[in-house]
Amino acid sequence: MKRLAIALTASLFFLAPGSARGGEMSGLLAQARQSFLPLPDKPVFTEYNPGNEAKITLGKMLYFDTRLSKSNTISCNSCHNLATAGVDNNPVSTGHMWTSGARNAPTVLNASLHIAQFWDGRAEDVEEQAAMPITNPVEMAATEKLVVERLGSIPQYVSLFRDAFAGEDKPVSFINAAKAIAAFERTLMTPSRFDRFLKGDENALDKNEKAGLATFLSLKCVICHSGVGVGGGAFMKFGLLEKPDFVTDPGLFDVTGNMRDMHVFKVPSLRNVELTYPYFNNGIVWDLSRAVRIMGKAQLGVELTDEQVDSLIYFLKSLTGAPLQITIPNLPPSTVSTPKPDLN
Amino acid sequence: MKRLAIALTASLFFLAPGSARGGEMSGLLAQARQSFLPLPDKPVFTEYNPGNEAKITLGKMLYFDTRLSKSNTISCNSCHNLATAGVDNNPVSTGHMWTSGARNAPTVLNASLHIAQFWDGRAEDVEEQAAMPITNPVEMAATEKLVVERLGSIPQYVSLFRDAFAGEDKPVSFINAAKAIAAFERTLMTPSRFDRFLKGDENALDKNEKAGLATFLSLKCVICHSGVGVGGGAFMKFGLLEKPDFVTDPGLFDVTGNMRDMHVFKVPSLRNVELTYPYFNNGIVWDLSRAVRIMGKAQLGVELTDEQVDSLIYFLKSLTGAPLQITIPNLPPSTVSTPKPDLN
Repeated sequence: MKRLAIALTASLFFLAPGSARGGEMSGLLAQARQSFLPLPDKPVFTEYNPGNEAKITLGKMLYFDTRLSKSNTISCNSCHNLATAGVDNNPVSTGHMWTSGARNAPTVLNASLHIAQFWDGRAEDVEEQAAMPITNPVEMAATEKLVVERLGSIPQYVSLFRDAFAGEDKPVSFINAAKAIAAFERTLMTPSRFDRFLKGDENALDKNEKAGLATFLSLKCVICHSGVGVGGGAFMKFGLLEKPDFVTDPGLFDVTGNMRDMHVFKVPSLRNVELTYPYFNNGIVWDLSRAVRIMGKAQLGVELTDEQVDSLIYFLKSLTGAPLQITIPNLPPSTVSTPKPDLN
Repeated sequence: MKRLAIALTASLFFLAPGSARGGEMSGLLAQARQSFLPLPDKPVFTEYNPGNEAKITLGKMLYFDTRLSKSNTISCNSCHNLATAGVDNNPVSTGHMWTSGARNAPTVLNASLHIAQFWDGRAEDVEEQAAMPITNPVEMAATEKLVVERLGSIPQYVSLFRDAFAGEDKPVSFINAAKAIAAFERTLMTPSRFDRFLKGDENALDKNEKAGLATFLSLKCVICHSGVGVGGGAFMKFGLLEKPDFVTDPGLFDVTGNMRDMHVFKVPSLRNVELTYPYFNNGIVWDLSRAVRIMGKAQLGVELTDEQVDSLIYFLKSLTGAPLQITIPNLPPSTVSTPKPDLN
């Protein structure tokens, strides 16, 4: 995961160090700063995929372009819908020929800062992730060849690829399409009031939210849900202390074949958790308070009280980011040589 | 069609009367003004569905909300995609359970100004149209009851409906959802260089485009493709002089049962025609020049020369509107009482 290391190191440069403004830092803020990082002020790019304006513009267009799917009906945005916090709010997504996926589609928002991508972490970064649904037969069902033929047949896209990947011999390539999408995704960050709090504005959270944060810390939720994503930075067994009946997915075991990895998943980020229902790897739980209770039991071995659940939810809702302001791109038209959609 | 009459009368108020700026009006402009109208400067609303900011805001949200579909995967925007000139660029659209529609999805752009909606004109205006795909089993497959239950379970929507339909006893209703969507759709207008020309800026079209307009007028394309939509204002038999083999759809006959209406369709608007391929009621033709040739043969009984086709296409491309600038709405989250998606 060497590319990731660069990203995480880079993100540290954006931290606002020092003490809280307007007085002494509270114990709560000091404690929070030991476990959490605010979102970086700017997108974090990697040496593997440096950001530039043309690439982000291109990536945004591709993110919304259904021509990346065999049927010309599914785009990245279909399942990672930017109108609904980067998810589709379904237990699992519906793909090519109305096929259901196996796991809940995680949000694209802030995802570039995670330790790895997918529930089982099988992609190391958003660059690797962005490519995979495009050719997955139960998702967009295209082939690399089809994507390159479609994009290469559209002059405006060819020109944008040239600008985005200047100096390359073959700018229009499948891997560059994924890189451009990933570059756009790296811009999708949703700073919340909790970030302002972490940066020193202690009034950014109200009394209930601060109490919720204290509950979150004292119950040790923070052991897994920490860092810049309040999660997304580690792998953990689902059902560490008590496995819920619905946890049947082998998770990371499917990637490593190691029994230690049975039911191990990337810890989900809790940013925007209020909006990214239904919950868990199979999207089986719709109610945030029920999800919180299940976590208490499964991961902490604790039967949470109603007061604890309510308190935690106050904190969780403070992680909801500012609404995105994204303009829909105007996609360039196909030409007569563009390969046609195929519904089968 | 009394509601429509109001709309068309209202649009006349927005016409810029008088002569061209900067000199005498050319014969071409004078002739064009006899057949065409520029787009109104503001959306045209009706007495039946007056516009207001809250309604347009709500309608835009609903337009993008997949919860109007049974499966929570299809929104108005799925088939009338604002990233691609209000169409999905497929021969026919794919709906609930991967079912194919029977006719090509027409663009929503400028559609509110048409004489009626759908290829067969079976909806009198966008208010009536907007409701129909929501409950069509091969499109969004919802029921009116489901839609009202879903929307009524979401406090932010309830509040927006109250603002949009102030004073009504039951603001959250299926018909009001359709009205709100329609109010948003009435804002979707794409003025083009041709509008500037019609308003008197004779330099808005170049030499080739003016020659194309002259060709369009002299070949009598304008008999059907006239008015504010350059089409969209009348019904006509497809294959008036020579019926192409692919014209098998009964069209308006299905609505009226009158043999005179066999293969009769609403004349499509040519605004944005460059972007709204594939063409005709069944989306069978992808190439604009082929579509133009077919029209010459079928409707005018003329075998168009290459020069005529090229000339007409110059004019048609001048009808491409300025790119839309539409921000993606941030949709309010469901609650635990919101009816769940159903894929079957």
